[in-house]
Amino acid sequence: TIDPDRLWRSIMETAAIGGTPKGGINRLALTDRDRQVRDWLKSACEDLGCTVTVDEVGNMFAVRPGRLDVPPIAVGSHLDTQPTGGKFDGILGVLAGLELLRTLDEAGYETNAPLMLVNWTNEEGSRFSPAMLGSGVHAGVFDRAYADSRTDRQGVTFGEALDEIGYRGPAKVGSTAFSAMFELHIEQGPILEAEEKAIGVVTGVQGMRWYEIALTGREAHTGSTPMSQRRDALVGAARIIGAVEAIARTHPPGVGTVGLVEVGPNSRNVIPGHVFLTVDFRHPDDAALDVMEKALFATVEEAGRASGLEHALRQVWNSPAVAFDPALVDAVRRVADGLGLSWREIVSGAGHDAAYVARIAPTTMIFVPCAGGHSHNEAEATSYEECRVGAQVLLAAVLDHDRR
Amino acid sequence: TIDPDRLWRSIMETAAIGGTPKGGINRLALTDRDRQVRDWLKSACEDLGCTVTVDEVGNMFAVRPGRLDVPPIAVGSHLDTQPTGGKFDGILGVLAGLELLRTLDEAGYETNAPLMLVNWTNEEGSRFSPAMLGSGVHAGVFDRAYADSRTDRQGVTFGEALDEIGYRGPAKVGSTAFSAMFELHIEQGPILEAEEKAIGVVTGVQGMRWYEIALTGREAHTGSTPMSQRRDALVGAARIIGAVEAIARTHPPGVGTVGLVEVGPNSRNVIPGHVFLTVDFRHPDDAALDVMEKALFATVEEAGRASGLEHALRQVWNSPAVAFDPALVDAVRRVADGLGLSWREIVSGAGHDAAYVARIAPTTMIFVPCAGGHSHNEAEATSYEECRVGAQVLLAAVLDHDRR
Ligand SMILES: NC(=O)NCCC(=O)O
Ligand SMILES: NC(=O)NCCC(=O)O
Repeated sequence: TIDPDRLWRSIMETAAIGGTPKGGINRLALTDRDRQVRDWLKSACEDLGCTVTVDEVGNMFAVRPGRLDVPPIAVGSHLDTQPTGGKFDGILGVLAGLELLRTLDEAGYETNAPLMLVNWTNEEGSRFSPAMLGSGVHAGVFDRAYADSRTDRQGVTFGEALDEIGYRGPAKVGSTAFSAMFELHIEQGPILEAEEKAIGVVTGVQGMRWYEIALTGREAHTGSTPMSQRRDALVGAARIIGAVEAIARTHPPGVGTVGLVEVGPNSRNVIPGHVFLTVDFRHPDDAALDVMEKALFATVEEAGRASGLEHALRQVWNSPAVAFDPALVDAVRRVADGLGLSWREIVSGAGHDAAYVARIAPTTMIFVPCAGGHSHNEAEATSYEECRVGAQVLLAAVLDHDRR
Repeated sequence: TIDPDRLWRSIMETAAIGGTPKGGINRLALTDRDRQVRDWLKSACEDLGCTVTVDEVGNMFAVRPGRLDVPPIAVGSHLDTQPTGGKFDGILGVLAGLELLRTLDEAGYETNAPLMLVNWTNEEGSRFSPAMLGSGVHAGVFDRAYADSRTDRQGVTFGEALDEIGYRGPAKVGSTAFSAMFELHIEQGPILEAEEKAIGVVTGVQGMRWYEIALTGREAHTGSTPMSQRRDALVGAARIIGAVEAIARTHPPGVGTVGLVEVGPNSRNVIPGHVFLTVDFRHPDDAALDVMEKALFATVEEAGRASGLEHALRQVWNSPAVAFDPALVDAVRRVADGLGLSWREIVSGAGHDAAYVARIAPTTMIFVPCAGGHSHNEAEATSYEECRVGAQVLLAAVLDHDRR
């Protein structure tokens, strides 16, 4: 049985690293705050006698030996956050994994397989696009050079930032193999809470695609430039923002969002000459995403023509829909039943490291509810009890798997 | 006769202070670059034996004595620029004024009235809203405390920035009186070039109003938040941006622009919870601006309702339409005729310090063309010849006025 007090304390203790006045966390990937929480995790794992290795893209692996010389069973998630993120997204998965190691240590329990706790680098994709970059490199979806070359909006590369915080390790990417991975995570959506289920048995992850759009018009004076002679990049952007919403609504249960907009020169009395914006489309059905993508391309063409803009549109990320390993999904279902918990099957709306890890090892996820479904929000809230239940299911599922 | 080479050299010399790779200038008000160009102007004026005084909001006044003990005749404009501004906007008016002083000095010409060259603070309104702030304080439209309290988007106040660059002077605002002001400026619009006129005889300035809108929705995950449960502040903003354009087009010759947008938290996979945007409406008829304003208020209500947003909308600036002094307008017309130049009457689409100064002294303006009407753009271009003609008309108009 895990110790829910100890788990909660570790969540609150690390939440102070980048803690915001509104009770959230601002701990973007590869910032000094990310380094601090990594240092914290490293020393917590070493205190348990685990060996911590770091790979070339900063993924951290802490191993607790087992009885047999076989590949470990992995648990984990990520410790980076959104700029105005919550205290649980990713963090619960890592700290519940730590709690699992601590519980086994205290009980003197020896597993058959070694256990491995993983902290994946840059899962959020907020500072460096795309999301799930560390797990993606591990799974061979991206190569190391690609990761190193990603730049944040200030022009700092992933590689520079990683070196800066001292978390480029010697382990070759992908060299730290494991036989299976279980990732505990908050749902980040409203379904479990609405249906009063304690556990989400996650069967897969929907498809997701990211796009970058650059619009170029002509900077001009807002007062002396007639409406008919304008090439206003922001007017074009507004049309695209509206269309992204409309495209998503006409392809249920798809979703579409423009999350980031940069306007140049961004001065009250200058007609915007440049706009950079991003689009995030998701759908459980990859074919529907193809249709949504076509509609986006047509929209950008049309908006460019209507406002006299040059435009560049590119897909920068495509993570197809993922189905998790049936045997592991079964194990989670069995464990939830065994503990007498209410559960439902669910497809994740959010991307997770498990989605990429599933390409190279049997993988699944366990969801717990979060209040109102609010996530990527400082008000994100999962209760003490929900955290306890999630960690307990994680422990039980891992031991169930280890026994087979 | 002014020396066009010397004028052009001074334009190019000061253009290096904040010069951009694309040939423009980035010299926001009260930055260190603004200090540098102020220092340059001060020493250039002192080299001519002029007395330079600075008032409490940083307006600079350089006086060349005349034969009589009467209030001076003023010329001038501003040396601050947009973040991606051109080499002529405001600058031509100040440096042509300097050229006028240099020409009279060289010729040993003694005017009846003293002449005064003015550099007004924060005309652009880009760093500190509203525009024409220094001349507005001078004219009693704003008080000094209001100016001091204006903040840039980083939270620095006008007062702090002014103290920082050391340009808060001892002269009480409004104490440096003058009997008339002539402001030479580039048109910043396409009319003179299209009609092949050398000079715009400016009869007034259109009305202009600025608004600030803050929209608050709810930050949420882009993947796991159903379309029906979103409160996306950017979707609301897009609707407003589109409506501002539509409102302007239905009130010709009015113009409407959203120039500045800030999105929070501005992350690709977070539904925007906050958007701040600005609106700039202009029309030669203040009654039409009332109608446009009403339509804006209705739009913001509706956009807020449609996306479930809290919204705050306020008018932050209202500069009514201005008619310049008929006698001075006549003087410019007479001088243009006398020099055999083509000219037309024109109402300024852009705001100018002259618009506020007109409240306290007879005032007018002289326009010269700029290529394509492009302004508030690094590519802004007025030719050597156009600068020469403008400065010559300025000199002739001032001397004409001085003789009466
Ligand atoms: N779990 C999570 O929020 N991941 C970030 C990647 C995404 O889904 O956008
Ligand atoms: N002349 C000029 O560009 N002034 C800035 C104020 C405005 O018109 O927006």
